[in-house]
Amino acid sequence: MSTTFPITDKTEITRLAKRGSYDKETIYSILDEALFCNLAFSLHGQPFQIPTGFCRIGDHLYLHGSVGSHYMRELASHSLPVSISATLMDGIVLARSAFHHSVNYRSVVIFSKAELVTDQEELYKALEVFTEKICPGRWADVRKPTAGEWKATMVLRFSISEASAKIRTGPPKDDEEDYALDIWAGVLPLQIEKKYLVPDPLLKSEVPVPNYLSSH
Amino acid sequence: MSTTFPITDKTEITRLAKRGSYDKETIYSILDEALFCNLAFSLHGQPFQIPTGFCRIGDHLYLHGSVGSHYMRELASHSLPVSISATLMDGIVLARSAFHHSVNYRSVVIFSKAELVTDQEELYKALEVFTEKICPGRWADVRKPTAGEWKATMVLRFSISEASAKIRTGPPKDDEEDYALDIWAGVLPLQIEKKYLVPDPLLKSEVPVPNYLSSH
Repeated sequence: MSTTFPITDKTEITRLAKRGSYDKETIYSILDEALFCNLAFSLHGQPFQIPTGFCRIGDHLYLHGSVGSHYMRELASHSLPVSISATLMDGIVLARSAFHHSVNYRSVVIFSKAELVTDQEELYKALEVFTEKICPGRWADVRKPTAGEWKATMVLRFSISEASAKIRTGPPKDDEEDYALDIWAGVLPLQIEKKYLVPDPLLKSEVPVPNYLSSH
Repeated sequence: MSTTFPITDKTEITRLAKRGSYDKETIYSILDEALFCNLAFSLHGQPFQIPTGFCRIGDHLYLHGSVGSHYMRELASHSLPVSISATLMDGIVLARSAFHHSVNYRSVVIFSKAELVTDQEELYKALEVFTEKICPGRWADVRKPTAGEWKATMVLRFSISEASAKIRTGPPKDDEEDYALDIWAGVLPLQIEKKYLVPDPLLKSEVPVPNYLSSH
């Protein structure tokens, strides 16, 4: 099995090509870390986009939503071409010149089409992985979906076969003559942090914080 | 001057409408906090998207890039319809049922078209605001763009006149009968944190950390 995605006319990184990657492991690690993606589609030339949670299982990406969601139904029934992106911001790159300011980031763009998931086992698995992604340990603890809730849930699957990543890391790159300037330069790292738990005001007082959340 | 954007067929929030907002101040505060946006456009029915830095000045959003950037030139020359989104993830909402798990978020979607900025003063202002957005205090400190660097920089302006926000805040909403379950419920807040500065390995040793960065 190939460890990289083929380069296509849509995924080829032409601008700052050295930042591009088609490596599966790299692309999947970005997707697995990102808490949401942006789904873009086009209707009569007008682009729309939806920020939404997602998860990955193997070479597929899964979104879920309500059967009442207009865009989910559109995507499922018309098999529209979509692009899906996920971006992680890792730092602000402070160069000596305004011109060379930048950011450190890891981003992925996927081109695909929606397929409606109808298999019950796959549906169940996707919801489990989705829940475990946003909170590892949670699935075993919660009240599982009822038959009615399953009926109200729509899951879309997107094959990941046309994808690329773009990544910038490291210190600023300044013009040679600017390194002599007395201007501070470096990186201000950014990180998404999980803060202290806020219990539901309606939480029964005797319910303890579960082990898988006890570090927050 | 109106304090809200008009609701159009493109911006109307139909799904979970109570989370929707057309309030200018709300929308602008989300844009000003977001470190990047996602620009989506469509070529022959195929959606593309670019994660990119941006800033806002009044009722306009500004992106900048290289004159060598293919997509910037396409957008500027063909006045393609675009959608621009920015999303802030504020927390993971842990309900008692898997079904009611959610996230707290603030997102904005704008529909607009690119205009090429040619006015030198506006170009300069946009770069200044852009730099100050990612690092307040930085502009006064850095080596300003040369004539050649200005020539290599393309700035696009997007009128913000068709826009909406979608926001979820607060604790989980569970089904009435689930509140009696012995399952912990609440919110795990998320926050983008600026961590400790990483000096450029090529930084002259006598250059101190400037005041505006001294808290990192």
